[in-house]
Amino acid sequence: MASTFGTNVRVSVFGQSHAPSVGVVMDGLPAGFAPDMEQLRAFMRRRAPGQSLLSTQRAEADLFEVLSGSVDGKLCGAPLCMVIRNSDTRGQDYAGLKNTPRPGHADWPAQVKYRGHQDAAGGGHFSGRLTAPLCLAGGVMLQLLAQQGIRIGAHIAQIADVQDTPFDPMAPQLDALLDGHLRVLDEQAGQRMAAAIDAARLAQDSVGGVVECAVTGLPVGVGQPMFDGLENRIAQAVFAIPAVRGIAFGSGFDAVAMRGSQHNDEYALDDAGRVVTRTNRHGGVLGGLSTGMPLIFRAAFKPTASIFKPQRTVDIARGQEAELTLKGRHDPCIVPRAVPVVEAVAAMAVYDLYLDYVKEQAYGVE
Amino acid sequence: MASTFGTNVRVSVFGQSHAPSVGVVMDGLPAGFAPDMEQLRAFMRRRAPGQSLLSTQRAEADLFEVLSGSVDGKLCGAPLCMVIRNSDTRGQDYAGLKNTPRPGHADWPAQVKYRGHQDAAGGGHFSGRLTAPLCLAGGVMLQLLAQQGIRIGAHIAQIADVQDTPFDPMAPQLDALLDGHLRVLDEQAGQRMAAAIDAARLAQDSVGGVVECAVTGLPVGVGQPMFDGLENRIAQAVFAIPAVRGIAFGSGFDAVAMRGSQHNDEYALDDAGRVVTRTNRHGGVLGGLSTGMPLIFRAAFKPTASIFKPQRTVDIARGQEAELTLKGRHDPCIVPRAVPVVEAVAAMAVYDLYLDYVKEQAYGVE
Amino acid sequence: MASTFGTNVRVSVFGQSHAPSVGVVMDGLPAGFAPDMEQLRAFMRRRAPGQSLLSTQRAEADLFEVLSGSVDGKLCGAPLCMVIRNSDTRGQDYAGLKNTPRPGHADWPAQVKYRGHQDAAGGGHFSGRLTAPLCLAGGVMLQLLAQQGIRIGAHIAQIADVQDTPFDPMAPQLDALLDGHLRVLDEQAGQRMAAAIDAARLAQDSVGGVVECAVTGLPVGVGQPMFDGLENRIAQAVFAIPAVRGIAFGSGFDAVAMRGSQHNDEYALDDAGRVVTRTNRHGGVLGGLSTGMPLIFRAAFKPTASIFKPQRTVDIARGQEAELTLKGRHDPCIVPRAVPVVEAVAAMAVYDLYLDYVKEQAYGVE
Amino acid sequence: MASTFGTNVRVSVFGQSHAPSVGVVMDGLPAGFAPDMEQLRAFMRRRAPGQSLLSTQRAEADLFEVLSGSVDGKLCGAPLCMVIRNSDTRGQDYAGLKNTPRPGHADWPAQVKYRGHQDAAGGGHFSGRLTAPLCLAGGVMLQLLAQQGIRIGAHIAQIADVQDTPFDPMAPQLDALLDGHLRVLDEQAGQRMAAAIDAARLAQDSVGGVVECAVTGLPVGVGQPMFDGLENRIAQAVFAIPAVRGIAFGSGFDAVAMRGSQHNDEYALDDAGRVVTRTNRHGGVLGGLSTGMPLIFRAAFKPTASIFKPQRTVDIARGQEAELTLKGRHDPCIVPRAVPVVEAVAAMAVYDLYLDYVKEQAYGVE
Repeated sequence: MASTFGTNVRVSVFGQSHAPSVGVVMDGLPAGFAPDMEQLRAFMRRRAPGQSLLSTQRAEADLFEVLSGSVDGKLCGAPLCMVIRNSDTRGQDYAGLKNTPRPGHADWPAQVKYRGHQDAAGGGHFSGRLTAPLCLAGGVMLQLLAQQGIRIGAHIAQIADVQDTPFDPMAPQLDALLDGHLRVLDEQAGQRMAAAIDAARLAQDSVGGVVECAVTGLPVGVGQPMFDGLENRIAQAVFAIPAVRGIAFGSGFDAVAMRGSQHNDEYALDDAGRVVTRTNRHGGVLGGLSTGMPLIFRAAFKPTASIFKPQRTVDIARGQEAELTLKGRHDPCIVPRAVPVVEAVAAMAVYDLYLDYVKEQAYGVE
Repeated sequence: MASTFGTNVRVSVFGQSHAPSVGVVMDGLPAGFAPDMEQLRAFMRRRAPGQSLLSTQRAEADLFEVLSGSVDGKLCGAPLCMVIRNSDTRGQDYAGLKNTPRPGHADWPAQVKYRGHQDAAGGGHFSGRLTAPLCLAGGVMLQLLAQQGIRIGAHIAQIADVQDTPFDPMAPQLDALLDGHLRVLDEQAGQRMAAAIDAARLAQDSVGGVVECAVTGLPVGVGQPMFDGLENRIAQAVFAIPAVRGIAFGSGFDAVAMRGSQHNDEYALDDAGRVVTRTNRHGGVLGGLSTGMPLIFRAAFKPTASIFKPQRTVDIARGQEAELTLKGRHDPCIVPRAVPVVEAVAAMAVYDLYLDYVKEQAYGVE
Repeated sequence: MASTFGTNVRVSVFGQSHAPSVGVVMDGLPAGFAPDMEQLRAFMRRRAPGQSLLSTQRAEADLFEVLSGSVDGKLCGAPLCMVIRNSDTRGQDYAGLKNTPRPGHADWPAQVKYRGHQDAAGGGHFSGRLTAPLCLAGGVMLQLLAQQGIRIGAHIAQIADVQDTPFDPMAPQLDALLDGHLRVLDEQAGQRMAAAIDAARLAQDSVGGVVECAVTGLPVGVGQPMFDGLENRIAQAVFAIPAVRGIAFGSGFDAVAMRGSQHNDEYALDDAGRVVTRTNRHGGVLGGLSTGMPLIFRAAFKPTASIFKPQRTVDIARGQEAELTLKGRHDPCIVPRAVPVVEAVAAMAVYDLYLDYVKEQAYGVE
Repeated sequence: MASTFGTNVRVSVFGQSHAPSVGVVMDGLPAGFAPDMEQLRAFMRRRAPGQSLLSTQRAEADLFEVLSGSVDGKLCGAPLCMVIRNSDTRGQDYAGLKNTPRPGHADWPAQVKYRGHQDAAGGGHFSGRLTAPLCLAGGVMLQLLAQQGIRIGAHIAQIADVQDTPFDPMAPQLDALLDGHLRVLDEQAGQRMAAAIDAARLAQDSVGGVVECAVTGLPVGVGQPMFDGLENRIAQAVFAIPAVRGIAFGSGFDAVAMRGSQHNDEYALDDAGRVVTRTNRHGGVLGGLSTGMPLIFRAAFKPTASIFKPQRTVDIARGQEAELTLKGRHDPCIVPRAVPVVEAVAAMAVYDLYLDYVKEQAYGVE
């Protein structure tokens, strides 16, 4: 199904890097909700490029238009379609890409899969440009979740070898996130990250990083067993972001070297008499279901595949090896702009499962 | 949708730890295929408990019965249903679990989600017992993939802090995997792993580990963009296995600290003139699509949640904190038995996407 | 996807006429519900054969077993699997069917589709035998709907040229349905229908009929626009019953010759101040959505394809025309036994959409 | 899921009668196909209004724009998005509709379902306007099917009580269809139909009709058993068209009064040695699968709900009964414009199942 996601809200993403538009259709949103469009634009700006030397200089206004699904600013129950015009398209920078696939991009497998008919310009449908409609979709769902007391926030946990203060798993510091170009908790770590990115840029190279994301306010019991747990669906959604190479919940790969007695989170009653865990190594989710503790996950991003250093590739047409030197505009690290995208796709997964929860809780059959 | 998976082959898993049966329905398998039942039984035995002190002593023959979908040993195009009787059920070991949820298990969120009606015995539908039908489903698909030259093999990459030799990402050593209780490449590492598990057992505790899995023989272009790439679907499937806390493809979280020039896999032509990458840090998948290189991923397993040490929990009925000491039979480390399960769910994801590929390649519209 | 249905409750049907079992898995039913098993058995008996000369003499106890999904008689939230053993299987009556396809059956297209690997015995997965698991699934959902005040009832509206009293579309006479072998409103019409069936039987022939079905108690607004309206989903479900050739809602094909002023149902307020229509030619559904009026549809059944008169067919193996004389046991009219099946599949479609409605109504976002 | 359809090609329809746009996203179309845009525009014109007094005078250019999915006129494998601007929107004709629901429209149930937030103007997402994107989607698939030798053609079989010559079920006269305003086989019948429509118009009333549709060139074995047979999916798709009240395949409701020996289509070998049926009362489909004979179905359309005669309704705001006199532009019979829409949605259902067939036939596992 490729570019559709969700069962309660069916999201269908379309567009290519240099197509007339990128956009999204969302079928199943609740009628009556009035998305805060200024807030959505602000969210889109967090992803937008061209804000500093740390990101690509491509000018993208990312002004979206609502084509359907809304009346007088309120959702009307019909599918919500939002599109963004690609004003800055079809440059010549990408000529010849079909013949000399870029290392680290989907060019080559796409060439084979679509038998040469893929949109090669800018990576086509595989471009990071497609994270814009993901943010439109997720941005609306973030607002819907917020209305239910569920917040999602992410920060740059690491760039190259520079680490930010991690979230407190018992109480993620969502209100302490800094709003600069680099969304971090520790301003000094942010400055060192910026320096690391700039060093890579000057070296015509790139760096990767980790985004840590927290979901707070989830009631107990959101998620489904087996294939549609919170982990399954969030993972499926997060791997939709180009450059993600791994995802881990709670203690993640660190759990491997722990003993069960170290890793298990014991239960207690809090002051209000609610069941809570004393620690949160499980990251807020057990058996696919939310436990009521903050849901925490980390996503690993590889260094940007587009680098300006010469690279070896093959000339498919001529059947010989070749050298490739990329031109154009590319982020030396996509992690800063990926932070809102992680929040967006997490919202898509969580909101879809939240609607299952609404249905289950509304419907007492006993 | 919870316990269903796939679009070309629709898999529906059912059963609870102590229900009369666990089983699976598979709708969409190709008519005419004759599953090798002896091979399937051998595959099931790799998951079966009771083989040594390293695993639970529950006696599970895991003898499956084919209820439908087959005529004279060949698939007939109708849904294939296979069931395993739970011969060893409804012990009293689990009495009271509803009131005192086990740390690290889904007991508590399931209690809330299902308003007290969940099957608490042995974790019910959340039990590791459900990996048996996953193996039935994946076991058939492994055979179907093998027929197309696609092999899937996994090994224990790590237990506690003991590491096995990793797969060579350019040529995973599938034929060198040892067939003992611990499926590893390095026999001595396996012995140290066994010792680590035994030490945890003696301490009434448990340990976690990592399973590394390789898929070889994939043609170029299997997978779909965005939400249905190989990473998305494999991740969704792997998180169906209880205790998985993270998944990473190729260099995974190690990619974070690399520069792009270090991480990008340059293209070359092999001796047969085929396009290949010179290295395989991308793990065989770019943009969700197979590149023709071996697909490699690692899954992190937490230490078994069921430990015999006393743990603090809450007595829900009485609204007070309580202590819990588990009885029964539990694996001090589930990783050894999880290896075939990882192979099975990977096969479910890969085979479903492979059928998309068959359709796409069969159908030239130009 | 073939034999799976539904989005909120995912139904997966399996089995063949002469496989070890037929059965069904239902994923998504509400935890806590205690199906009335005696009522379910009574419902199954309405479909069971062998009750009179009017139906096939095959002895089918249709005793089902619950394999999973229930604890102490209450649904536990895990998939509910129910199976029926096929005690009366693999007769020799069907030998040779692969070579000489029966007119009116799926033998020939199934032979081509599955390249000769289909289960030819008794029609395999295409057999009317598969309506037994449909009744199991629908039977449970009928009970769930009844709990919400939604009733579904059907009767034989016509057999051959004998018509029963139709339902009053403003107030379907569900409580007046007769419980004899032929479920009708008018006992004398039932006797004439029985005579028509018997005449066909004696002539080694068969007859068709119409089942009319009513759904009462639906709140306003159940159903989705466009592809998932009540008509769309009920139609999709009803065509799962072998021998159905048409379906029509409300005035159906009779609407064609009406003027709009004759067909439109004007609105009024009833004594309680509720909005109702003054007539019910629309059959309780407009734009895919329930209007609060009784939902009424009619399904046309062709005469049983299995007749004892000699018929011309082809001998595929020999590549020549041939004559076929069927043996075995066959209903001269399947309509009497199809009545509960129509109720069952209608329940599957309605209940699935009802759960959407629960979600929508529970969730006020304003 | 409402406004999405299909598994191989995922179609997502959006828009309302008076939203900025109506449109469609199609995910899963084959890369490399070059839709004939002139042919698609010609197809759209068949649906367009304003061609004569027989249809609404609303001026709709129905000029569509391709937003994504195509490069240099060829599909590139990414989702194809096409939109039509609604140039003629937000008239005042519909003011007050929320308070006085129109008989025969979805106004009232939509008002309840969406709690007053629905787009009431022109029926919003329930409007016949939404058949334009259906035609865009189906129009592309008709071309894809034609490339495989599969043709779909429909005609007006009946308007009021005037009948056209029916299709010859053994050889539907697709090449004899007249291209005038009324797509019929018999020109004189067409003139009488036009007169019937005009008479209704003059009486401020409306009439209904029947569209008969044929699919030729289908190979044997397209379709899936049970819920995804050709009948199930075509029916689900056809009920997406507003005003459809019934659908029947082959002999349809006429089969009811036949004996099995009259209805069964016996097999024979044709001159080329292929298995064919001697007659085609089954309408080309048995058990959900194509038999290789022409697939024939009929869809019943009710008379246009929008009539100019005064009608009784209720004033919801005031809680009292009221009279309603519609203004604006409305087709006195929507059947003439519905003919291409029936072809379009049939193509959506058939093409989606055809891709299953491609997969099945490409993949020999023996």
